[in-house]
Amino acid sequence: MPYVNIKVTREGVTAEQKEKLIKGVTDLLRDVLGKNPNTVFVVIDEVETDNWGVGGETITARRKRG
Amino acid sequence: MPYVNIKVTREGVTAEQKEKLIKGVTDLLRDVLGKNPNTVFVVIDEVETDNWGVGGETITARRKRG
Amino acid sequence: MPYVNIKVTREGVTAEQKEKLIKGVTDLLRDVLGKNPNTVFVVIDEVETDNWGVGGETITARRKRG
Amino acid sequence: MPYVNIKVTREGVTAEQKEKLIKGVTDLLRDVLGKNPNTVFVVIDEVETDNWGVGGETITARRKRG
Amino acid sequence: MPYVNIKVTREGVTAEQKEKLIKGVTDLLRDVLGKNPNTVFVVIDEVETDNWGVGGETITARRKRG
Amino acid sequence: MPYVNIKVTREGVTAEQKEKLIKGVTDLLRDVLGKNPNTVFVVIDEVETDNWGVGGETITARRKRG
Repeated sequence: MPYVNIKVTREGVTAEQKEKLIKGVTDLLRDVLGKNPNTVFVVIDEVETDNWGVGGETITARRKRG
Repeated sequence: MPYVNIKVTREGVTAEQKEKLIKGVTDLLRDVLGKNPNTVFVVIDEVETDNWGVGGETITARRKRG
Repeated sequence: MPYVNIKVTREGVTAEQKEKLIKGVTDLLRDVLGKNPNTVFVVIDEVETDNWGVGGETITARRKRG
Repeated sequence: MPYVNIKVTREGVTAEQKEKLIKGVTDLLRDVLGKNPNTVFVVIDEVETDNWGVGGETITARRKRG
Repeated sequence: MPYVNIKVTREGVTAEQKEKLIKGVTDLLRDVLGKNPNTVFVVIDEVETDNWGVGGETITARRKRG
Repeated sequence: MPYVNIKVTREGVTAEQKEKLIKGVTDLLRDVLGKNPNTVFVVIDEVETDNWGVGGETITARRKRG
């Protein structure tokens, strides 16, 4: 009965990419741990680049610096 | 000093329903564990159906299939 | 397909109390939002009092002060 | 390789305030635990006041009561 | 800079299985979203079966019923 | 009414360091956002190095490689 939460920056993730992430993680839990796919929950959170920090600065600032 | 996070799909949850969830969970923690309601935090996350997966597919896809 | 995470301090919560929390939250989501209980996941995290802070100090310190 | 999640109510937090939170938390982890800032992730979640409960009621209701 | 949290019941997950989960999720984020593996964080939480509920009862109770 | 979750690897974090993290984060939220310290919750999770992955491998493996 696994629960997986994936957090990525909100930068144009498409519905098709989300489907692939959900399918891929579910298959992984079935293959590695033998979990029944019907009991695997996956929640994707898309986070604004202003709200995500690495190295003490926002992703927005890092993207600007290039 | 409990903290409760409730994640549901974003499918028209009303403000009144949110109030009932918050009240209900807070009462539960008071009744079962004797917690002071003033120290109970509840956060409700509403998740897009494209971003929630079960059984390897999105809720959007499941709802379409009916 | 709700997911609920309950965090409480690790201070002797019994198996019976955990059952009541899980049953209570699941019933609440069925009653308020019409969710199918079989799709409700509840995860309880018990947190050491050294690892939980309120008002800038640990729960351990608060409990000592009385 | 710390990960920090900060949840606050969505009540006009500015980009500059977010930068200060991210910088401040990252510095704290470097100073207290000696962590390399480049390995510190910070995610800020802004939560609607309808979706946050304390004392059994929403923040929206508390703000109204004053 | 993705962050992934995987929650499973604590039922004898081996170190090798954890390695496979971490490798698999990281590869998935590289393949689907083009993320740099060095920026992918994965945290696995193992949850006691007394602390995980589905359908209003603990996993412990479900496992006993068979 | 902020809630902060800090996840670090379980590698000998002392009670005093936890107190400093809790105090530091609480002060930060007061200084940057004007939050009342009494409403700031902080939860520290210590994660086994086998359960934390970066770059597709566990921290345990990275530490061994040096």
